[in-house]
Amino acid sequence: MSELSERSGVAVPTIKYYQRENLLHAGEFSSPTQARYDDTHVDRLRLIRALIDIGGLSVASAREVIAAIDDTSLPLTWTFGVAQRAISTSVASVDSPSTGRGADDVAAALDEASIAIHSDNPGLPLASRVLDSYYELGHDELVGVLPDYLRAAVIVANADLDAVGRQAGRSDMAQTVVVGTVLGDSLFAGLRRIAQEYVSRQRFPDPDDSERQTKDES
Amino acid sequence: MSELSERSGVAVPTIKYYQRENLLHAGEFSSPTQARYDDTHVDRLRLIRALIDIGGLSVASAREVIAAIDDTSLPLTWTFGVAQRAISTSVASVDSPSTGRGADDVAAALDEASIAIHSDNPGLPLASRVLDSYYELGHDELVGVLPDYLRAAVIVANADLDAVGRQAGRSDMAQTVVVGTVLGDSLFAGLRRIAQEYVSRQRFPDPDDSERQTKDES
Repeated sequence: MSELSERSGVAVPTIKYYQRENLLHAGEFSSPTQARYDDTHVDRLRLIRALIDIGGLSVASAREVIAAIDDTSLPLTWTFGVAQRAISTSVASVDSPSTGRGADDVAAALDEASIAIHSDNPGLPLASRVLDSYYELGHDELVGVLPDYLRAAVIVANADLDAVGRQAGRSDMAQTVVVGTVLGDSLFAGLRRIAQEYVSRQRFPDPDDSERQTKDES
Repeated sequence: MSELSERSGVAVPTIKYYQRENLLHAGEFSSPTQARYDDTHVDRLRLIRALIDIGGLSVASAREVIAAIDDTSLPLTWTFGVAQRAISTSVASVDSPSTGRGADDVAAALDEASIAIHSDNPGLPLASRVLDSYYELGHDELVGVLPDYLRAAVIVANADLDAVGRQAGRSDMAQTVVVGTVLGDSLFAGLRRIAQEYVSRQRFPDPDDSERQTKDES
């Protein structure tokens, strides 16, 4: 196990914890005190760390999505659902369904774009609750972003499915679904920050570095 | 204060906590034991709750972005930066800069799209670290989503700036920047889940509800 720890960069107590929590499969026992670990253990540890550290999943959520990857009887479309639900549980708001205008706005936008989905899609309460908040905060002008956001989301989802299509075999595809769904939110969030600076500089050509410098010094 | 609690739906101890933490301005004292609160306090409490509950900000981060809204000397483009940094601190990975291929990939994609930004944009390490993870996990196929994600991010950023442009006055615009940046990540994440189901059903027309029903019952 110390060799596994060295190869994966994960501390031994953490590895033991992941095994107790059923995130990592056991090694093959070569003697009562010695277990053999292979590349599948190293790969799995890297996946666990990425889901938890970069994706922000809880240990419980990580266990769920890993079980979904390993469950070969699970159709691929459902793997998306499992991954989506795992991320959504980290957002408190999802527990309380939207009862306000947000849900109507989302339904109208989906209708306009001819997008039909199941009523239990975890994205529905998430998006609706944010729109409810915009109204509650008196920021109705932000609700207007909805059609453009939806158009962008379809572009992103097509890119996600393109990546899945580049894999062969159900297990690899399922892992692409999970990794791409969980970590993709962070990737997009990063690119949105980049694009915001780019667009805002175009529209509000205001301070440049030298001005800021002057202000800081005064 | 009990009236403020009733109007805002925030418990009295929580209101006191926000005041101690400098998130909420003090009321006007009408007697040594009686303070007067007005609509600005109710509005501010709603904003604090939305930033923390829906946006997932820490109390410290919420205080920072609220200070940025109130600082009228701060140019609007910088308000974006403050809001972006506040969200980014909740992602552990941002502390460790990308040293791998991810940063090169992001730079190449920005170059290709003729997007120039500051090297301290908080989106750069965030996006780069996710791409590093894709490589580390052996999911190189996911790196291919980058150009499409970036295109979608520019659409979203333009919608964000459109919303800011619908406001008049620096204070309202700054609040739109903060609310739209912090809560917009959740809105987009929700719409991405919706779009994933829509696109994946188009491409992998596999199980329908009746099949799942059968499987569950067997």
